[in-house]
Amino acid sequence: MALVVQKYGGSSLESADRIKRVAERIVATKKAGNQVVVVCSAMGDTTDELLDLAQQVNPVPPEREMDMLLTAGERISNALVAMAISAQGAEAWSFTGSQAGVVTTSVHGNARIIDVTPSRVTEALEQGYIALVAGFQGVSQDTKDITTLGRGGSDTTAVAVAAALDADVCEIYSDVDGVYTADPRIVSNARKLDTIPYEEMLELAASGSKILHLRSVEYARRYGVPIRVRSSYSDKPGTTVTGSIEEIPVEQALITGVAHDRSEAKITVTGVPDHAGAAGRIFRAVADAEIDIDMVLQNISNTTGRTDITFTLSKANGPKAVSELEKIKAELDFSAVLYDDHVGKVSLVGAGMRSHPGVTATFCEALAKAGVNIEIINTSEIRISVLIRDEQLDDAVRAIHEAFELGGDEEAVVYAGSGR
Amino acid sequence: MALVVQKYGGSSLESADRIKRVAERIVATKKAGNQVVVVCSAMGDTTDELLDLAQQVNPVPPEREMDMLLTAGERISNALVAMAISAQGAEAWSFTGSQAGVVTTSVHGNARIIDVTPSRVTEALEQGYIALVAGFQGVSQDTKDITTLGRGGSDTTAVAVAAALDADVCEIYSDVDGVYTADPRIVSNARKLDTIPYEEMLELAASGSKILHLRSVEYARRYGVPIRVRSSYSDKPGTTVTGSIEEIPVEQALITGVAHDRSEAKITVTGVPDHAGAAGRIFRAVADAEIDIDMVLQNISNTTGRTDITFTLSKANGPKAVSELEKIKAELDFSAVLYDDHVGKVSLVGAGMRSHPGVTATFCEALAKAGVNIEIINTSEIRISVLIRDEQLDDAVRAIHEAFELGGDEEAVVYAGSGR
Repeated sequence: MALVVQKYGGSSLESADRIKRVAERIVATKKAGNQVVVVCSAMGDTTDELLDLAQQVNPVPPEREMDMLLTAGERISNALVAMAISAQGAEAWSFTGSQAGVVTTSVHGNARIIDVTPSRVTEALEQGYIALVAGFQGVSQDTKDITTLGRGGSDTTAVAVAAALDADVCEIYSDVDGVYTADPRIVSNARKLDTIPYEEMLELAASGSKILHLRSVEYARRYGVPIRVRSSYSDKPGTTVTGSIEEIPVEQALITGVAHDRSEAKITVTGVPDHAGAAGRIFRAVADAEIDIDMVLQNISNTTGRTDITFTLSKANGPKAVSELEKIKAELDFSAVLYDDHVGKVSLVGAGMRSHPGVTATFCEALAKAGVNIEIINTSEIRISVLIRDEQLDDAVRAIHEAFELGGDEEAVVYAGSGR
Repeated sequence: MALVVQKYGGSSLESADRIKRVAERIVATKKAGNQVVVVCSAMGDTTDELLDLAQQVNPVPPEREMDMLLTAGERISNALVAMAISAQGAEAWSFTGSQAGVVTTSVHGNARIIDVTPSRVTEALEQGYIALVAGFQGVSQDTKDITTLGRGGSDTTAVAVAAALDADVCEIYSDVDGVYTADPRIVSNARKLDTIPYEEMLELAASGSKILHLRSVEYARRYGVPIRVRSSYSDKPGTTVTGSIEEIPVEQALITGVAHDRSEAKITVTGVPDHAGAAGRIFRAVADAEIDIDMVLQNISNTTGRTDITFTLSKANGPKAVSELEKIKAELDFSAVLYDDHVGKVSLVGAGMRSHPGVTATFCEALAKAGVNIEIINTSEIRISVLIRDEQLDDAVRAIHEAFELGGDEEAVVYAGSGR
């Protein structure tokens, strides 16, 4: 008997009918002899509708109240799924994040999980119940207020609960049937992977893949929770995320796949006086505004003793970062802050890359042949990323996928509305 | 400085626009120098929509999950009102029933409040915040599950919180501007009362008046909380429910008003063997099904040694009661169970009635003159109720209101959509 955690996203739950089908799958899993815990996101467009209502009463809603409001969505979906399960002959109890023992920091809208003490969930399982846990939420350790977990919150809830319960697997359901060698909507012969190590999934997620959220993969790797990415529209086994790259022989450069990311923008601070501390001051100003940066490029200082510092960040944070940098312009005496949001990032992920210089060469040649100019390049042990013009992204993805012969023989399956 | 508790019903909160207007009133009350606690029902049709969704996934939804589902409604409305208050320059925190310390029994769908320990509310008030408390809900003392309070739950929450905080007043807002001498939609010259004692409000509520729920009036009387019934569409002072009938001279028969009730049905168990215990057995069978009964009539046994026992109950419980009685038919050897749901109840409420036999006579004469036949009559210290044919209810209400000269000079104000 295994302990299975399943997570269903909003599109899998968007109507009473979809909810009943999800319940069928859950009950079947239980009847197969497993203990089952389910984490549900809010139904379909609920979260957006609540956000819209909030905007109507207050253009800048207080964050504590936003968390109180949004968490109603998961409460509704989990209770409805529990009811649907009950109609199909199994027993189920739903729990809020708080009731399930998901304890977090106090940062509303972006809380981090501190601990998960799921005693009520365990008790439900022992009594033969299916337990549902509302995703995307927890309770603040300090203030006892309800918090939401930010992007990828429901995936993170599922993995965290799986870790706390020492589950055998955490299945993440959406409308895609696994992790592919590239986005099947761009590359028609992209192949579905049967397995992928945590580290490579991390890199894919960090490089733009929307299949799984970075946080949840990090959490899974830390606690050794196997993740299975599956479609709620079929019975296919999906892709299992597990193990470690140490298991793959170093001599063999294994290429896993190509990811792309349209969500970043580029900021260049020009004419920065080239003295110690200038770069640090710039990055500190951005960090203090709680903005993460990704790729960095610092030009070699020219004869004027000034340099340009370039970095990428999420488009959503662009305006704020520019504003923070403008504040220190006089103090640092740099020339200007330039903002460019027509950039895109394309990445190749695979074990043992850096010890194979041929990989980088092949990568850059493929891009050159496709007429794609590289603006910034960034590598790690298992990833090569480049910043390019966003309108060239599709061409770049296809060129790299082709150059590394990642394609399969079958046409990739793309479900209507896929994109989670 | 006073501590004011305000309760807003669903129709007062049915859109973002109504919510903003309610927030204006709340902020104005705060700015006048009061501490303010607000209890909100779910927005407009939210509860019905959630019930409908539940029905779609399970025709007989488990009660624990129904409470998890429905309480999302109050969570949403209270968070939105808190946001609207914030947009208007005051600060507000919303709390679930559980967070506000509303502790209840474990009966899902109809929990009773055991205690209210509102320390987080008090703390918010001390910090200068307006506190919002989700109505209609609490947390079970035994199971720690979320519970809903049944009919009149939000009114009860408001009064219970007012009692726990020793508030100066509990204002119940709806779309009627007070308590009238009769339903103004039936009696055009019905008068709005400035004040009404708890006991008479209790009788009016028990007799069919929908202005305030019986439970909340009982709670207010027990803890001495003054209730003010007001309209959220105007600034009129409304009706204050307070004090006690002991303050009114016994010699003066004070008539307060006429109430009517269309929600009851009549059950007659015919040919019951006239031995000790038969009646008790019948009432026990109904009570064990958790069904309350109202008026009772037992015919004097005739020469056959058999009697008929008649009682009234809520129409909603009718089929269940009939079914429970059919189960004991063989055992008790009675003839039949008759069910009649075309009955109505009309009541006259006022202090010192029973010591004024003329009141009962005038009451019955007025009905006779209007051609209304009395099927069951039931009196208390301050109320006379009769069961009649439901199609005669309006005539009966008008006849009694006229006979006791309760009418005022002005036409009663009826708001569109009134009826809460």
